[in-house]
Amino acid sequence: MRTLAVVGGGVIGLSVAWRAAESGWEVTLFDPEVGSGASWVAGGMLAPLSEGWPGEDDALEFGAASLARWPEFGARLFAATGISVFVAEQTLTVALDAADAADLRTIAGFVGAHGHDLRLLDRAEVRAAEPNLARTVRAALFSPTESAVDNRLVFEALRRCCAQSGVRMRPEVVTSLDDLAHDRIVLAAGAASARLWSSLPVRPVKGEILRLRHRPGAPPPPRHVVRARAHGRQLYLVPRGDGIVVGATQYEAGFDTTVTVAGVRDLIADAESILPALGEYELAEASAGSRPGSPDNLPLIGRLDDRVLAATGHGRNGILGVPLTVDAVAALLDGDVLADAKAADPQRFLSGGKR
Amino acid sequence: MRTLAVVGGGVIGLSVAWRAAESGWEVTLFDPEVGSGASWVAGGMLAPLSEGWPGEDDALEFGAASLARWPEFGARLFAATGISVFVAEQTLTVALDAADAADLRTIAGFVGAHGHDLRLLDRAEVRAAEPNLARTVRAALFSPTESAVDNRLVFEALRRCCAQSGVRMRPEVVTSLDDLAHDRIVLAAGAASARLWSSLPVRPVKGEILRLRHRPGAPPPPRHVVRARAHGRQLYLVPRGDGIVVGATQYEAGFDTTVTVAGVRDLIADAESILPALGEYELAEASAGSRPGSPDNLPLIGRLDDRVLAATGHGRNGILGVPLTVDAVAALLDGDVLADAKAADPQRFLSGGKR
Repeated sequence: MRTLAVVGGGVIGLSVAWRAAESGWEVTLFDPEVGSGASWVAGGMLAPLSEGWPGEDDALEFGAASLARWPEFGARLFAATGISVFVAEQTLTVALDAADAADLRTIAGFVGAHGHDLRLLDRAEVRAAEPNLARTVRAALFSPTESAVDNRLVFEALRRCCAQSGVRMRPEVVTSLDDLAHDRIVLAAGAASARLWSSLPVRPVKGEILRLRHRPGAPPPPRHVVRARAHGRQLYLVPRGDGIVVGATQYEAGFDTTVTVAGVRDLIADAESILPALGEYELAEASAGSRPGSPDNLPLIGRLDDRVLAATGHGRNGILGVPLTVDAVAALLDGDVLADAKAADPQRFLSGGKR
Repeated sequence: MRTLAVVGGGVIGLSVAWRAAESGWEVTLFDPEVGSGASWVAGGMLAPLSEGWPGEDDALEFGAASLARWPEFGARLFAATGISVFVAEQTLTVALDAADAADLRTIAGFVGAHGHDLRLLDRAEVRAAEPNLARTVRAALFSPTESAVDNRLVFEALRRCCAQSGVRMRPEVVTSLDDLAHDRIVLAAGAASARLWSSLPVRPVKGEILRLRHRPGAPPPPRHVVRARAHGRQLYLVPRGDGIVVGATQYEAGFDTTVTVAGVRDLIADAESILPALGEYELAEASAGSRPGSPDNLPLIGRLDDRVLAATGHGRNGILGVPLTVDAVAALLDGDVLADAKAADPQRFLSGGKR
């Protein structure tokens, strides 16, 4: 039986391990603390179309191809565990001023040219869709297919899937891939991946989120994922069963996961500018993660040498990227290349697989 | 040996239990979770003078008498445990506008007439005292004797003192004082005291605080306790070994200790208006407590009937009130009345000790 080591127990590592185990590999997953990384601190928004922008064609195509795989992937998680991970079905990106509204038209045009239809809503349509948004919201881009998942439920489901399919969990830090005797290795250590393969251009990008819990008397969470630019910063509000995840700040701060006063202040101010009643919610959690940033906002999925594959660099879009990454890695383990993930080949940055 | 039940394991209950045990009582302290109440969520500011206001003469005298006892009380804690609880020696109350500055003069005049000298500082003197305060601070009231303690260290010290002096801890909820067979009872259950003695006019007043931790590169915490009125709300910044406690919101909200988004937002905004660099601190904790409010902002310390004494109703000033409350209760247990605490006699609200 062929042996596979997966280094990293975020959503990417867990889902790759699950698929490989189901495909007949003997899989060992190494992570000192599964669930302690960036995937635990995420909104779970699946919105590659609404995040589209002219010039970022590869990122759009990669994200759209992964989004298209999420319904089936979610159904497989449900079939295996009984856990339903979806928390919203559709996304609204709102505009607060004329510049925002112009940007929404730009996005709709760009994404439309790639065959994905987003629809502009006027004030009245926005209000009908989400009655509790601020009156200052003047327009929105409606995306009927961009859903969201509860990242922590995804975790829980993937853990169970791994356990059921016989993945061995080793709560250990891997300090060198040379220490691993496995036939193949998937490096899925997120922002820490460059510690194990130094030429891999992945770096930590700090992101803070808030988890708000609904309190009696407060308006309910939105039904859509709500995205916006507020005070010049990107913001998202993703519904949860009992509240909302608000994200995310973004800093180049090295491996720092302390939650700052300024980060919390900004997230609250931005969120309240979109959903004024949020002040009445409970601030249940504030946390930070180190997202694995890549130079071009596309992940790094592909062969590093004869034994080692990379599956990292997903930045803010790791949850979104799970199904396509899993398919791409499965193909690579079979000696194939998946066309939809070709643009993510790390060889675009490397020469000859040097470490 | 005479038996005493103390109901409530906040700082008041613990310190009363300790003193009584040292005085020869056989003491049992009842609390389902010592340290889960309002005293855990406190700044530890000892500032009755800076909080003085014309007409509140009794509250000033009570607070000043307790403040005067803190050095000796702190020394006794240190002698018994080796824990030094003081975190600041002096207090600055700052003014952001002309109305604030006028208020500071009013306070200085009122408190001065009671024999306590506070000194007005101008801009330059404020800056010399605390260089990192906002430039908008135009004046301050300097209080040379108003210190602050770390409330959680006070807790830790009092727990040890109780253990050393033989206080029996019973982690149980008391639902009726009639269930207790002890010779005497001290009701020190904070905001919950009215559940056990319904005519006692004590109610929960919700207060939220933030605990901020210093991060490398950020300016150090202030050396003084810094008090202010910001955006119309009372604010305090109390130094800690590794950061600052920011307090406190105030709501009449029943027994609700959820931390709200609006509360955190307001505390951050108010604190940054006084100490702009706070944004760089870590937001280590946000929590809420139910302070035991009384109708006149004086505590309720005295005889309820032949067996039961009250020691509650300290509102936002429970930590401050510890040493005087302990002395007052000790006197009452000996059949005496302490002159300094006479104004806190609950009989001012009760007729004939009815429940």
